[in-house]
Amino acid sequence: MSGSPREQPGHARSQETSRAAVDPGLAEVTIGPATKFAALPDPFLFWRGGALSEGRVAYETWGALNEARDNAILLFTGLSPSAHAASSPADPSPGWWEKMVGPGKAIDTDHYYVICVNSLGSCFGSSGPASIDPSTGLAYRLQFPDLSVEDIARGGYETVRSLGIRRLSAVIGASLGGMVVLAFAAQFAGFAQRVVSISGSAAASPFAIALRSTQRDAILTDPDWQDGQYSGDIRPITGMRLARKLGTLTYRSAAEWKHRFGRRPASDRHYEVLSPGRAHFPAEFAVQDYLNAQADKFVSVFDPNCYLYLSRAIDRFDLSAHGGTMLSALKRAGAERALIIGVESDILFSINEQRSLAEAFQAAGTETEFVPLASLEGHDAFLVDIEPFAAAIGKFLA
Amino acid sequence: MSGSPREQPGHARSQETSRAAVDPGLAEVTIGPATKFAALPDPFLFWRGGALSEGRVAYETWGALNEARDNAILLFTGLSPSAHAASSPADPSPGWWEKMVGPGKAIDTDHYYVICVNSLGSCFGSSGPASIDPSTGLAYRLQFPDLSVEDIARGGYETVRSLGIRRLSAVIGASLGGMVVLAFAAQFAGFAQRVVSISGSAAASPFAIALRSTQRDAILTDPDWQDGQYSGDIRPITGMRLARKLGTLTYRSAAEWKHRFGRRPASDRHYEVLSPGRAHFPAEFAVQDYLNAQADKFVSVFDPNCYLYLSRAIDRFDLSAHGGTMLSALKRAGAERALIIGVESDILFSINEQRSLAEAFQAAGTETEFVPLASLEGHDAFLVDIEPFAAAIGKFLA
Repeated sequence: MSGSPREQPGHARSQETSRAAVDPGLAEVTIGPATKFAALPDPFLFWRGGALSEGRVAYETWGALNEARDNAILLFTGLSPSAHAASSPADPSPGWWEKMVGPGKAIDTDHYYVICVNSLGSCFGSSGPASIDPSTGLAYRLQFPDLSVEDIARGGYETVRSLGIRRLSAVIGASLGGMVVLAFAAQFAGFAQRVVSISGSAAASPFAIALRSTQRDAILTDPDWQDGQYSGDIRPITGMRLARKLGTLTYRSAAEWKHRFGRRPASDRHYEVLSPGRAHFPAEFAVQDYLNAQADKFVSVFDPNCYLYLSRAIDRFDLSAHGGTMLSALKRAGAERALIIGVESDILFSINEQRSLAEAFQAAGTETEFVPLASLEGHDAFLVDIEPFAAAIGKFLA
Repeated sequence: MSGSPREQPGHARSQETSRAAVDPGLAEVTIGPATKFAALPDPFLFWRGGALSEGRVAYETWGALNEARDNAILLFTGLSPSAHAASSPADPSPGWWEKMVGPGKAIDTDHYYVICVNSLGSCFGSSGPASIDPSTGLAYRLQFPDLSVEDIARGGYETVRSLGIRRLSAVIGASLGGMVVLAFAAQFAGFAQRVVSISGSAAASPFAIALRSTQRDAILTDPDWQDGQYSGDIRPITGMRLARKLGTLTYRSAAEWKHRFGRRPASDRHYEVLSPGRAHFPAEFAVQDYLNAQADKFVSVFDPNCYLYLSRAIDRFDLSAHGGTMLSALKRAGAERALIIGVESDILFSINEQRSLAEAFQAAGTETEFVPLASLEGHDAFLVDIEPFAAAIGKFLA
């Protein structure tokens, strides 16, 4: 079971986890025991130029591929999750979409063979800025090729191809994943029979670009980022925390926070001890505790350079690059059916973006269902307000 | 005309501008030639405790006080402006509300005597963390008393009292100013006949608190903040720039930016030269140029400690502290008429906050007009989409 993932595509197991820790300059990344690895073609050419040697994609699977090999569903994640979408015998810990993926659930693993990939460029087992460049034995950092959403899509494509799958029953993604499925459909025409894009966009809005570029600024201007050459011990924690707080601001909605936090006072005052100056400005409201907790959690697991690469890729994505317009891209894609879901309180990927996307799919000749949800939970609704999403997805896939 | 402002309340002139520059540790602040100064009672007691000696408020005036002394309007600003709301013979440069205040305009200086104050705690002539503590000869910095919106209101009250005014025809404010007018009405019952609160709130929402506390974090975690002891040469520029970018994100609306910037490419790439690492992540979209320009402008004029004090005061404000509920506070205030204006696209001070406020004014027995505007310009609409605001305010004051 050991050996390089190139020799045993799709079968290298968690022994590979040490690989991400070879570079003494980076913190070790924890990869779950159900993680498998697919070797990418060598070289793997990037959409904007550049190439990767010995690249790989980490993934997990649930259910079984049928004999006809036509019951596979490929799942792409948002910016930050790993491939661990749901628990399994090999890894019983709850996954990031535990309530959606499993036996008898909306994405029903009794019927479908589900593959979830860790995005290329991320840091949970797939090749990315934090993984090792075989030509140097050190992490790529900023020498990693210029990542695009199209490359993430291709990473998923090569993964399912390595599993002997020639056509997907569906490709599904939310947030960043909701963009990746579009890049997938545009690049691999006809490969996915059905496309499900949740809280995604055909091209980032200037508001979202402003938000994400400010998040990147917070990291880029942190002296501890050190031009990407930070060590495992001293990392741009301050910038990463600010970036995550900023993200957290846009993942839910003001209405939901009003209900959840109101103006309740903070209970956690640990920031008071940091310095005499900061003691003048402690957290005073419960919502600040929440932001601090979210920031702490993120910083402990995510690599800063990977974050920068993925964040920039989202800003740059524009489906119309595939053929000149969104419509021509989707005509070329030739999906049979599409399900587009959006949330009215989403300020990051607005409902108008999903509506336009659904209209373009329809105009491209794809049988399209558009589901606008009135959830208060904002952009992250697909993670927390599961029922309406599960209802729409379950019905679409049935 | 020289001498301390305490000896000549309301008449000390721009010779006083050197005062803000006495502390060699802080950058000099430019104060316009039309600025006058009102001495505060000594000691000036703060709402949360603490006191100020030799405090003052910078202000400008337009028009003339009539013999009955009943045509005065007091104007409070948002977080960042100076008292220079409009041009005048003494200072012909355009003010921050140039299109609203002047002869024949909505706030008509042919009929009204208009006073605009620089908020107590700010850095354009009024006492604040950047001004000199007479007991040390150095800037207060974090030794400035704990500032509340109530203190800003009282600073305005003392200013108009020093001008011999016993009752205001109206008190008007937008954004932070829209809160200050409420604190004014609650503290000085009956002093203002009419209240105009624009894009304000009776208490900051958790979303707005999250946003502002993250802005403060950006400054507090900037090593150059130095626990508030930064010098004039080395200031927390990085944190201030991030804070302003974050603010800028919430001052307009996603719809307006989509129209204004779309996905047009950046023209300004000056950040590429900063470091080899940052050169990998230059501004690529026009909206990033805009954020950079807004950040540069703000950093060049605003004091970081003053920003922290004002920002925190906004989070803490809660009108219901005056009597137990918003309703009891407004009953106590006893204003004759109120005009509440809000903007539907405002994500910082949401239209629901203004609606609740209008309902409470009405319930408190004040004749109330609520004007919800459909402007795309978001929170800053009162600065850029002047016409509908001018129409509502002009009609209300006529």
